[in-house]
Amino acid sequence: MTTTEPIRRNVTPVRITAVHDGHRSERPDTLATEEPLEIRVEGPDGIAHQVAVTMRTPGGDFELAAGFLFTEGLVEPRDVRRVAYCDDVEDEAQRYNVVTVTLARGFDPETLRRNFYATSSCGVCGKAALEDVEVRCAPVTDPTTLALDVLLTLPPLLREAQRVFDRTGGLHAAGLFSASGVPVSVREDVGRHNAVDKVIGEHVLTGNLPLAGHVLQVSGRLSFEIVQKAAVAGIPIVSAVSAPSSLAVDAADRFGLTLAGFVRDGRCNIYSHPHRIV
Amino acid sequence: MTTTEPIRRNVTPVRITAVHDGHRSERPDTLATEEPLEIRVEGPDGIAHQVAVTMRTPGGDFELAAGFLFTEGLVEPRDVRRVAYCDDVEDEAQRYNVVTVTLARGFDPETLRRNFYATSSCGVCGKAALEDVEVRCAPVTDPTTLALDVLLTLPPLLREAQRVFDRTGGLHAAGLFSASGVPVSVREDVGRHNAVDKVIGEHVLTGNLPLAGHVLQVSGRLSFEIVQKAAVAGIPIVSAVSAPSSLAVDAADRFGLTLAGFVRDGRCNIYSHPHRIV
Repeated sequence: MTTTEPIRRNVTPVRITAVHDGHRSERPDTLATEEPLEIRVEGPDGIAHQVAVTMRTPGGDFELAAGFLFTEGLVEPRDVRRVAYCDDVEDEAQRYNVVTVTLARGFDPETLRRNFYATSSCGVCGKAALEDVEVRCAPVTDPTTLALDVLLTLPPLLREAQRVFDRTGGLHAAGLFSASGVPVSVREDVGRHNAVDKVIGEHVLTGNLPLAGHVLQVSGRLSFEIVQKAAVAGIPIVSAVSAPSSLAVDAADRFGLTLAGFVRDGRCNIYSHPHRIV
Repeated sequence: MTTTEPIRRNVTPVRITAVHDGHRSERPDTLATEEPLEIRVEGPDGIAHQVAVTMRTPGGDFELAAGFLFTEGLVEPRDVRRVAYCDDVEDEAQRYNVVTVTLARGFDPETLRRNFYATSSCGVCGKAALEDVEVRCAPVTDPTTLALDVLLTLPPLLREAQRVFDRTGGLHAAGLFSASGVPVSVREDVGRHNAVDKVIGEHVLTGNLPLAGHVLQVSGRLSFEIVQKAAVAGIPIVSAVSAPSSLAVDAADRFGLTLAGFVRDGRCNIYSHPHRIV
């Protein structure tokens, strides 16, 4: 069992054939690293349950595991006792690709079945499974406000804090900012939702939840999933450089979140609870 | 049971607060529609197994269900007997959000457990679960070649064929083209992988597989998942407007696929099997 994360490069060097004006040349290049991470949960009985395999960029693996389990409604932050790599994998290349989250209390694997897999006859209503898509969380009533000119600075601040994007063009970023625009956590990943889980997971591990008074800024588009994760973490304002989906807006409206999109070039659209942008 | 798809709008009208130069105005806008789709598989015994709930843009639901089950290695195309909406959902709003794929032969739910969920003690090697990430498929040996100037036309052709993108900015597109650059199928979705599953699913339903001699063009970045789906469908060339991940390139190399990225502005990078681009 390894309870510290190794320093791993989040870019992978490759050799490519570059084609320009019909001319070919071989040259070195760097790609955003993508590898599978298997997330396991273990209760005090020592039995580990495989919860998910997600394709992610290495770095912040413990945050990702803790954040994922929390934002998917599977684990309460106070129950996390230890996060570690599972060392006994046979394949050396996978040594840092299996993370076990050990809980202080028992874990009911039925939770998983309900969330990720179910068997039912077609005669049984499909509503239950579809409703399970929505993780239960109380509406966010946080009265935090954000000045419009601060909101407009978040995308360039996020970009600046992104160390890898300009080198590979392949990474999404998520950043947590204070309401005065100070960066608190910035994480990158090939998966948009993973970047958000890493940001939230950092605060699961430090016990700093809910994230009232904060803003979540993401680099791309906004899906339902991202809004739900923010709501579970109690983040009152979510902002994206690009477009939200219909269900992202619908969820933000119901969960009490302020959702801003197309935040760029001095303008933005506000899709829900606009009173928080002042 | 409903075996035809209704015409559904893939955009959703909303009212937003637009902020420009510090001025606010309320105006109508359109968003890419995102809704959950529950995919079920039913054997001749009439028992339906819930396989997945995916967030998708309505339209091409039957293609998406068939394509997903095929590219995830769960179902063989020849076994698909019928695809239909499951009408007996309680909630009228979900009437078109549950699709059942009926098979001519039995379905072993253990397949699901192996793919999406497993329980094991931490003492058991994690390799099995991680290896299951890779769907088994034969390497693609298709000798198809693609002229460079045809490759360079695919991104603008895909964009032209995209009816919704310019209205919402929220949809990914995937297009299947012949090696002479003729569009065969173009599909859009809030989920990048869903757009690919819809494209491939169309050919699962018409029995037109493998897709030898074709090129898959996607609008954004390239992940492992997309390359794997293309390999299962036998598509020899995959092209993206933006960056691939390290595992996408690694998989393309091993599966025998030609992978091109950053295909724009008259240039491109070729990451694997460059001999097919001539």
